[in-house]
Amino acid sequence: MKLRENERIDDLHINDYKIIQNTKGFCFGMDAVLLSGFASVKAGETHLDLGTGTGIIPILLEAKENGESYTGLEIQESYVDMATRSVELNKIQDKVTIVHGDIKEADHLLPLSGYDVITTNPPYMNSGKGMPNPSSMKAIARHEVLCSLEDIIRVSSRLLKVGGRFYMVHRPQRLMEMMDLLKTYRLEPKRIRMVHSFVDKEATMVLIEAKRYANPLLKVDPPLIIYKGENDYSDEIRYVYGMGKQ
Amino acid sequence: MKLRENERIDDLHINDYKIIQNTKGFCFGMDAVLLSGFASVKAGETHLDLGTGTGIIPILLEAKENGESYTGLEIQESYVDMATRSVELNKIQDKVTIVHGDIKEADHLLPLSGYDVITTNPPYMNSGKGMPNPSSMKAIARHEVLCSLEDIIRVSSRLLKVGGRFYMVHRPQRLMEMMDLLKTYRLEPKRIRMVHSFVDKEATMVLIEAKRYANPLLKVDPPLIIYKGENDYSDEIRYVYGMGKQ
Repeated sequence: MKLRENERIDDLHINDYKIIQNTKGFCFGMDAVLLSGFASVKAGETHLDLGTGTGIIPILLEAKENGESYTGLEIQESYVDMATRSVELNKIQDKVTIVHGDIKEADHLLPLSGYDVITTNPPYMNSGKGMPNPSSMKAIARHEVLCSLEDIIRVSSRLLKVGGRFYMVHRPQRLMEMMDLLKTYRLEPKRIRMVHSFVDKEATMVLIEAKRYANPLLKVDPPLIIYKGENDYSDEIRYVYGMGKQ
Repeated sequence: MKLRENERIDDLHINDYKIIQNTKGFCFGMDAVLLSGFASVKAGETHLDLGTGTGIIPILLEAKENGESYTGLEIQESYVDMATRSVELNKIQDKVTIVHGDIKEADHLLPLSGYDVITTNPPYMNSGKGMPNPSSMKAIARHEVLCSLEDIIRVSSRLLKVGGRFYMVHRPQRLMEMMDLLKTYRLEPKRIRMVHSFVDKEATMVLIEAKRYANPLLKVDPPLIIYKGENDYSDEIRYVYGMGKQ
């Protein structure tokens, strides 16, 4: 596998899978790994990841789940190219497809009511103020430059089968907005999990599972605690990162 | 202090305060204690507790906070009588008042936009199905027989000052409904805290703080864990119950 400038190959510690990343670009974070752990794709189910970047989420899901197919949609060509090579590197082309396209138009590109599961690790920041370079690769991954949270949720609702599951990771600060938008587009929140760096600290991320058309009963999972001590990952995080058994 | 039939006096482990409870009626639970710990009433502020029952919440708040006044509204006369005697027993009549009245009509009974802080530990169950005896004291405290969650939130919004704080404890299952209703009545959720019996178990209660007219930024507090081991309360719970220092 030939690498381009500033690229490196990282080990994913699962199934001997690897991933290509650009050290000058947006590299995947713990949020993508935790979302992959939180989501499930059952035997026979089809999965779509909106804004897949390096392809980390479909690749990790393919490694741990028994789904029928995994698709990653990405707008930035350089990431599409990188993710496609990562899929080839892991020899999972028969299961994982990377598609070049815009989330805002995904409901014209991809089959309506066509997926059992949709995942997304969207940009966390509202677009607009204080952006040094809105066209940079990193800015697009982090800020809502090219699509808003509402675009993602609206399109997800159209692409999910009735009863299909939507999984997202986001900041707790925007939980109310997420909940509102999910309700508006008939994705009923069914399960949330708060992520705390330490057990006595505020949540820094929230994982959410919603279902297209469902009754409104919510379950709150045990908190996901990242560290048990200074520089000492909790057992769950060690397990998620392939560093230990749970 | 003369006790009536089936009544007993319990120690509250704070300020030497005590409370009268009826052993055949609804006795306060951990939810009321945790809500009192979660809420704050600052110097000069006025507080109202909707559906105060034994008066546990205003009594605990008066013990730990520096508010100007505390009012408990209760519809069941036998509880009004019991709570009033508990207030006298603790000699806090100059700070705490128990009022007899219906939550649904509280906005005609009490001053509109009159309170800085409102607390409520409402009935958790939807009314209707499977109720053996809807007129019993316990049923009224546990089921939405006499008022709904929407009644409580609507009235709270009318009784709170602009910028005033609303604190509630409820079941996570109904979090979406709570969030919806709070939004509808312009009480913006600002802080939530999940309560888990053990760190690796689902949440069983959720504490929520909302503010009348505020921007939509939510904070998720560290999880509140009740037990650290079998029959072994966590340090925080021991502190809240006056059994240890934090």
